[in-house]
Amino acid sequence: MKLSLNQATVKRASVPEVVDVCVRNGIPAVGLWRDPVAEYGLERTAALVASAGLEVSSLCRGGFFTGLDQRLDDNRRAIDETAALGGSSVLVLVPGGVPDRDLVAARARVASALEVLAPYAEAAGVRLALEPMHPMFCADRGVVSTLAQALDLAEPYPSSVVGVVVDALHVWWDPALAVEVKRAGPRIHSYQVCDWVTPLPADVLLGRGLPGDGHIDLVGLTSLVTDAGYTGYVEVEVFNEDVWARPYDSVAADLVRRHESGWKPVVDGGHDRLPVTP
Amino acid sequence: MKLSLNQATVKRASVPEVVDVCVRNGIPAVGLWRDPVAEYGLERTAALVASAGLEVSSLCRGGFFTGLDQRLDDNRRAIDETAALGGSSVLVLVPGGVPDRDLVAARARVASALEVLAPYAEAAGVRLALEPMHPMFCADRGVVSTLAQALDLAEPYPSSVVGVVVDALHVWWDPALAVEVKRAGPRIHSYQVCDWVTPLPADVLLGRGLPGDGHIDLVGLTSLVTDAGYTGYVEVEVFNEDVWARPYDSVAADLVRRHESGWKPVVDGGHDRLPVTP
Repeated sequence: MKLSLNQATVKRASVPEVVDVCVRNGIPAVGLWRDPVAEYGLERTAALVASAGLEVSSLCRGGFFTGLDQRLDDNRRAIDETAALGGSSVLVLVPGGVPDRDLVAARARVASALEVLAPYAEAAGVRLALEPMHPMFCADRGVVSTLAQALDLAEPYPSSVVGVVVDALHVWWDPALAVEVKRAGPRIHSYQVCDWVTPLPADVLLGRGLPGDGHIDLVGLTSLVTDAGYTGYVEVEVFNEDVWARPYDSVAADLVRRHESGWKPVVDGGHDRLPVTP
Repeated sequence: MKLSLNQATVKRASVPEVVDVCVRNGIPAVGLWRDPVAEYGLERTAALVASAGLEVSSLCRGGFFTGLDQRLDDNRRAIDETAALGGSSVLVLVPGGVPDRDLVAARARVASALEVLAPYAEAAGVRLALEPMHPMFCADRGVVSTLAQALDLAEPYPSSVVGVVVDALHVWWDPALAVEVKRAGPRIHSYQVCDWVTPLPADVLLGRGLPGDGHIDLVGLTSLVTDAGYTGYVEVEVFNEDVWARPYDSVAADLVRRHESGWKPVVDGGHDRLPVTP
């Protein structure tokens, strides 16, 4: 499985900077975010990535369907942008939270948004990757909480059009993980890794460790994903202030080393045993 | 459904103080914790609660089975203490986290601990209530992450011996909630409420709001639990520094008022619409 660097892991890097970092460190693909792409320019980004010989493994992100406005126009633009960037043509969809207390209704708005967007994506040659999110984000960010639920939502559509993101942080705890990754099969449009570290920081959104530093069995998860037939990139997406403060090349070199070890736990850092609250 | 005050909601109250607060505010039951009970004395607590006319709805907590030591001796003592306190004779079991990266093995240690403890509890007339915990606690506190998983673990035993806690905070996000609460039926040994508030505080363990202040549809959940045949108490368990700083009687009176409204959302406090991250 080949490595991809999600731009959020080096959050402060511009598009040219993240492209340079990938090239210098032998990373063959990049996951981009819409805001920095817009800042540098969509066509310029596509040209730069192509001339650097990089593939775009995913674009983050569309979604946020669950408010009273389902943001369908913005999502159509995100699909167009994904198509323009070429590469894997995968658009990550973050479902959105529950704006009141009606979780069932919020989840239904995800389903109805897909009804509109799936044909649009298919026509554009873009694969939608619905991201089941860790239940700690259910209230304010993602009402799709399990792989099973995401796959149920994807089921009415061809697997080449609507699939899922398997993000280690979001799914590692799921008792049905092995069964649902296998079921996902060709619907795995993106595989993202990071690690679950304890204690969580004040902003849980930033509570991600580098792969190997935490509680997730990434060796096992990567096997599940491979066994399910996934042949795409493994994209490292880490939201972490300490990682953001490091030089981009130091982060990239560190990731290449961890990737080459197959995401084995970082035991030399004292992480062979992990803290458990008594 | 009658109200019970879990001692953790007024964390700094001693056993006599929490008993007085319940009596003064017309709350008919109390959920106790082992440490303050031990401090006041087990027999003295049992006598005090009985003479006050209160019922003990649950004792917190046994469990933490997932380390290399399954703490079976301590759990037998917890069962004995639960029996001595009378009342509902429900012991809450917090499963424990994953001390390495082998989540499957940690979960198996929960199952093997129950094999030993279920017969012991049955002989003591104590009902074990396994607590599925929100997946954000999977790493360091509770590897049982869904009601479905807890019910699978309980299945080999009579429903009067091994059941579950339905704690709103832990289960509200679950896409299978309605199905699994119904399935739980007589295995619901404890029903606990609080609310999910955003943003979460620095210590997510303390991120609980008073019922009605957050994103959880407590009216709906209470209906599901009632429809499943549950006739026990609704116990309010809120870990929250701001609540702990309030006078005990103010907290208790507030809870009585919210309980009488059927845990309807607190709309007059501006919580009719909730924040969602765009």
